[in-house]
Amino acid sequence: MSETIAFLGTLDAEEEADFLAALAAALPEETIRPFRTLSAEERAAIRIAIVANPDPAEVALLPNLAWIHSLWAGVERLVRDLGGNGVPIVRLIDPELARTMAEAVLAWTYYLQRDMPAYRRQQETGTWRQLAYRPPGETMVGLLGLGALGSAAAERLVGAGFRVAAWSRSPKPVPPGVAGVSGPEGLAGLLATSDVVVCLLPLTGETRGLLDAGRLFAMKPGAALINFGRGPLVAIDALLAALDAGHLSHAVLDVFEVEPLPPGSPLWRHPGVTVLPHISGPTTPASSAGIVAGNVRAYRATGRIPQAVDVARGY
Amino acid sequence: MSETIAFLGTLDAEEEADFLAALAAALPEETIRPFRTLSAEERAAIRIAIVANPDPAEVALLPNLAWIHSLWAGVERLVRDLGGNGVPIVRLIDPELARTMAEAVLAWTYYLQRDMPAYRRQQETGTWRQLAYRPPGETMVGLLGLGALGSAAAERLVGAGFRVAAWSRSPKPVPPGVAGVSGPEGLAGLLATSDVVVCLLPLTGETRGLLDAGRLFAMKPGAALINFGRGPLVAIDALLAALDAGHLSHAVLDVFEVEPLPPGSPLWRHPGVTVLPHISGPTTPASSAGIVAGNVRAYRATGRIPQAVDVARGY
Repeated sequence: MSETIAFLGTLDAEEEADFLAALAAALPEETIRPFRTLSAEERAAIRIAIVANPDPAEVALLPNLAWIHSLWAGVERLVRDLGGNGVPIVRLIDPELARTMAEAVLAWTYYLQRDMPAYRRQQETGTWRQLAYRPPGETMVGLLGLGALGSAAAERLVGAGFRVAAWSRSPKPVPPGVAGVSGPEGLAGLLATSDVVVCLLPLTGETRGLLDAGRLFAMKPGAALINFGRGPLVAIDALLAALDAGHLSHAVLDVFEVEPLPPGSPLWRHPGVTVLPHISGPTTPASSAGIVAGNVRAYRATGRIPQAVDVARGY
Repeated sequence: MSETIAFLGTLDAEEEADFLAALAAALPEETIRPFRTLSAEERAAIRIAIVANPDPAEVALLPNLAWIHSLWAGVERLVRDLGGNGVPIVRLIDPELARTMAEAVLAWTYYLQRDMPAYRRQQETGTWRQLAYRPPGETMVGLLGLGALGSAAAERLVGAGFRVAAWSRSPKPVPPGVAGVSGPEGLAGLLATSDVVVCLLPLTGETRGLLDAGRLFAMKPGAALINFGRGPLVAIDALLAALDAGHLSHAVLDVFEVEPLPPGSPLWRHPGVTVLPHISGPTTPASSAGIVAGNVRAYRATGRIPQAVDVARGY
């Protein structure tokens, strides 16, 4: 019989119950218990921790941890808090995530291209006015990030007839029909020509604050921004200034520096901002648990820890 | 030199100027003049009228009219007002319309599937809550209408991974991956099982009021409705009752019995209704004018009137 697996997270009770039930269903052969129910002796025996926004102080109380499995794909906080202690961190790689994220990119690109925010504002004032229609073939979508998510999104957009450019720090292969650009000059060109900029980058030391005032005001006048990457990629004060100045037309934000977005944030009430509660790439407890189960079983069978995050790179 | 072509419409001045400019550009060899500028003698010489919501009394003052070209695809009002006088009515058949309409069907299906109206309401109250995600593969979209528009929409939805059923009065061939249904029983089955019902039917004596209280309350609980066909296909009082009862979750309405939608309509302010100003299948003046030009030139070259509307059928 295997040793107990610890579950550590700062979730609300309902979310924690959902995840624990899904993990129990996906791994019936394992015992998975919340950290708070473990004695000091039991904690010393823990080899695997499954985590969802864990308290680092609790993780430090597991002295014989072999590896940590995150229930999320984004692990910048885990890397920051725990990357230095040498325990491998495995992040959730959901094969469905590229599909759901690409779907979200297309859905909210249509939201902007078909002027849904403007028609919503017109409805609020009882205004009947047909706005000029811009077909996808005359709409340039600029993607920031060309990993699995960016590539899948680019393919969906090309399939829907949009013009698509995609930027990565260093040159990468791109799907057919996509203009690949790289480096600082490639970024400047993409921002200056895109009607919709979609941010799908991971958060690292190099991407934090990438869309600052200079780059936001260098975007094409009237363009819109979608941020489905991480909150700190975008300088929010500068974004609000660009919206208020009429330089940008709209922003769809699904990720924030602090989540949940605090009640006092001006983003909630800005007419040029659509606030989403981190739902662009939804992962259900059942699908997360299934992926975790596969990794835990492979480890039990082979003793090899699954591919872990590169702490220096940050993802 | 050809005789003058009359332009008749009840458009605002800007719209009329846009259409006249586009027609002049597309048909430089013709003289096209607004009805109000024609003398009685000139009116008697008119053979072709290009119309956009014309006043029937004005059309009656053109005694030698050979045919009428509508600038719209929907001609139910023209057929009602002018169908009895024997002058062939040619409607706009825009090859781009199937593409733009299919795009609108996919865009507003995503709007509902990705819960954009609910997230909008959450934003208004500063609520951060992730709603359960339903993937396209578990979302049934039921299309009413299987003409050129319905078929193109069905293909786009299947391509995006949605489950798709499509209804027509009599059995018709359907695109791959689509469940074709017909007759009253087929309609009942589609309404009972669809998460999103999309109405793309023309308005005829048989389709007027098709979605009445009985059929709306026979829809799947929690389902949503998109009407991109014609306003009178849906009984609005019954729709509001179904929304207020919580039986339906949302309605996206682009077409109305009276357009523009009157300021006093309760639809403007209903939280479960998205009002659009008839923009699902946008046709630009330039693209309309190009299609009209092709039909006028074919008539000049051959003397044959283009394929006209079947007045008995209504489209």
